[in-house]
Amino acid sequence: MTTLTVTNAIIAQQELSRRLARKGKTIAIVPTMGALHEGHLSLIRRGLKKADVVVTTIFVNPTQFAPNEDLNRYPRDPQGDLNKIKQAGGQVVFIPSAAEMYPEAFETYISVENLTRTLEGGVRPTHFRGVTTVVAKLFNIVRPDVALFGMKDYQQAMVLKRMTVDMNWPIDFVICPTVREKDGLALSSRNRFLSPESRRQAPALYLALRAARRLVREGKTDAASIENTMRAIIGQDAPSAIVDYIAFTEMETLRPVSIIGKQTVASLAARFGTVRLIDNLKIA
Amino acid sequence: MTTLTVTNAIIAQQELSRRLARKGKTIAIVPTMGALHEGHLSLIRRGLKKADVVVTTIFVNPTQFAPNEDLNRYPRDPQGDLNKIKQAGGQVVFIPSAAEMYPEAFETYISVENLTRTLEGGVRPTHFRGVTTVVAKLFNIVRPDVALFGMKDYQQAMVLKRMTVDMNWPIDFVICPTVREKDGLALSSRNRFLSPESRRQAPALYLALRAARRLVREGKTDAASIENTMRAIIGQDAPSAIVDYIAFTEMETLRPVSIIGKQTVASLAARFGTVRLIDNLKIA
Repeated sequence: MTTLTVTNAIIAQQELSRRLARKGKTIAIVPTMGALHEGHLSLIRRGLKKADVVVTTIFVNPTQFAPNEDLNRYPRDPQGDLNKIKQAGGQVVFIPSAAEMYPEAFETYISVENLTRTLEGGVRPTHFRGVTTVVAKLFNIVRPDVALFGMKDYQQAMVLKRMTVDMNWPIDFVICPTVREKDGLALSSRNRFLSPESRRQAPALYLALRAARRLVREGKTDAASIENTMRAIIGQDAPSAIVDYIAFTEMETLRPVSIIGKQTVASLAARFGTVRLIDNLKIA
Repeated sequence: MTTLTVTNAIIAQQELSRRLARKGKTIAIVPTMGALHEGHLSLIRRGLKKADVVVTTIFVNPTQFAPNEDLNRYPRDPQGDLNKIKQAGGQVVFIPSAAEMYPEAFETYISVENLTRTLEGGVRPTHFRGVTTVVAKLFNIVRPDVALFGMKDYQQAMVLKRMTVDMNWPIDFVICPTVREKDGLALSSRNRFLSPESRRQAPALYLALRAARRLVREGKTDAASIENTMRAIIGQDAPSAIVDYIAFTEMETLRPVSIIGKQTVASLAARFGTVRLIDNLKIA
């Protein structure tokens, strides 16, 4: 097992990244909010195949939470995170403070305009501006050659990819598959807050997505009728769930499609009590 | 005289910057819109003292012009520019196309929120978003260790400095003094459009700024009364000028001051026909 270097100050991480670059080492970044699960660890392992050093960042970013959202109860497990990163082979962890990331005079934001107006951005209007701003800062601090994100946060992945391309960061942007529990539930740091009964019902979201993919494979193309089937499955298997949206979109542009064509993603958000889950599946 | 390397494609400049970094060479960037004058060349010369290689960028950035502004008649002199850069000792020129900088799907913008609401930002509400966005892109393409900007565009310098700090680019941000004609007129690519009579009157702007500084040195602190004196000087010596604003602000925060204290900048904008000039002076 390798030694794990932990940096807390921005300048320390910048100096470390500079030293690595001077030695000709390539860097992969895995930005996280901590409370790591197998999904994050899969990104670290993939990063180790793409670069010499993987820098995992842990920062529960306040600017991506709205005042009514779950910033304060977002799960935190610093010691567990460090153990998991070390076991996965990650070499560096950057854990900045909110005070250093957002000093009092801070007033610069980066926004991706169109991709953020729909889906999660429709429900959480300031969310993605916070995500893009913090990732831009992390890119400039860590100076990675490769950045890895999970497909679980589908819209986030597309928004950050667009930002990286538009702003010309010389970074290889890698999107990795969603990691799931055996029963299909997508791994999420928020799953731990589900009641036992909700946890039992939650795999219905993935069942509905799989049903959509099966219907498309059988030749169905009408999005509205596929959505009806999905809502019926969720209504039956997860009666506690309140569906925020079910959407069918072009993979990269997030444009809604009413007739399923190529490169289409079905995505959804649903609430079990106060726990909000999202999931998605490429169905064509 | 050194050889001048010209890059036109983003990927070519990125590759060149990567090669320089691998050789341990430091890079200074001097972003310009071309039509170079002695002010730009002073930035290149200063850059050569701060870094091994100076990359001058020439790009008349469409996103910082509003539809009613002078994008199409902005002066262009590519061959003259290359000769001047070469004579000043600059080694690299990056001249991207608008099509490559802003491809059709482009939709990411970076904004500094408060500093851009006043002065030039008050008159030109979309201007600074265009400036910060293009400079962010140029930072990511050129990957400089040092960036040089002129004090002539005072607010622009403060906005870009704020952006650089807020977004953690590891770049030494250097602001250089305004270069002036013998009669005091600040060098600007737009001066060439002044009529002979307006050109004769235009130094009144600097005379008014110097009068403000003299009054402060004599112990005057009331901004309103100093502004009156400035307006009187411009009214008398430059009757063709229409003053857009005269402002007294804290140097870095751009906060307006009514009683002149330390670190105060007097700035102004005035129009001679369709030619709009800006200037400023640190008066305390």
